[in-house]
Amino acid sequence: MTFTQAESGYLREPRRLGRLATVRADGSPQVNPVGFSCDPQRGTIDIGGLAMSRSQKFRNVARNGQAAIVVDDIVSTDPWRVRFLEIRGAAEAIDGPPGGPGDGAIIRIHPRRIISFGIEDPVAEPHQMRSHSRNIS
Amino acid sequence: MTFTQAESGYLREPRRLGRLATVRADGSPQVNPVGFSCDPQRGTIDIGGLAMSRSQKFRNVARNGQAAIVVDDIVSTDPWRVRFLEIRGAAEAIDGPPGGPGDGAIIRIHPRRIISFGIEDPVAEPHQMRSHSRNIS
Repeated sequence: MTFTQAESGYLREPRRLGRLATVRADGSPQVNPVGFSCDPQRGTIDIGGLAMSRSQKFRNVARNGQAAIVVDDIVSTDPWRVRFLEIRGAAEAIDGPPGGPGDGAIIRIHPRRIISFGIEDPVAEPHQMRSHSRNIS
Repeated sequence: MTFTQAESGYLREPRRLGRLATVRADGSPQVNPVGFSCDPQRGTIDIGGLAMSRSQKFRNVARNGQAAIVVDDIVSTDPWRVRFLEIRGAAEAIDGPPGGPGDGAIIRIHPRRIISFGIEDPVAEPHQMRSHSRNIS
């Protein structure tokens, strides 16, 4: 499985925003708040939106096939600690079905590298939180 | 002034995380949750952190001088609406003073383009929220 059980659970908590980084034609980055869903079976992250197919991020992905998304939250403000899951990978810009409801287009990320911090052991004290990184083949 | 009064106010609200996008040597994006501060006089966004000078994002900026940051929050869940301020620009990787406290290194973003949504009129109904984009010379 691409995602651990803890990661899948974290990604499926309601009302989480992700922030999606893509790269523009001139090589500069852009970053957008996005809704997303995690498909544990397929091992992908899918990102939709009302006007996805007309968005710059969709065109960026169509052009270069790369994206990264981070999902995070503040665990503690004193000390200041943030949990996060960053997922980098190959990305597809997939058009919605013709005549389908709404826009229907999505960006689909196939993870190549996952960096998690504080996700595997949610009851750990902030100073005991650990970073885990791995490549996905 | 680089930032409008509403933008400065939004960026200076306490306990906000930003998400910083940078571009790696291979041209792929990465995205990290970061603490930041807004310098209204200088018109920059400064991003620090415990081990900033040893981070990949710092090296990315040192290499290509580009970054984007987004600051956002959820205004309404029904309908689902998110306010945000995305700032793209030239970025500097600035080492901390030798012998200074902590790491001291920062990434400083000099805005070139600002995209705001729902920031200028915080009392607007979600369906009345407007997007504003502008270039900074």
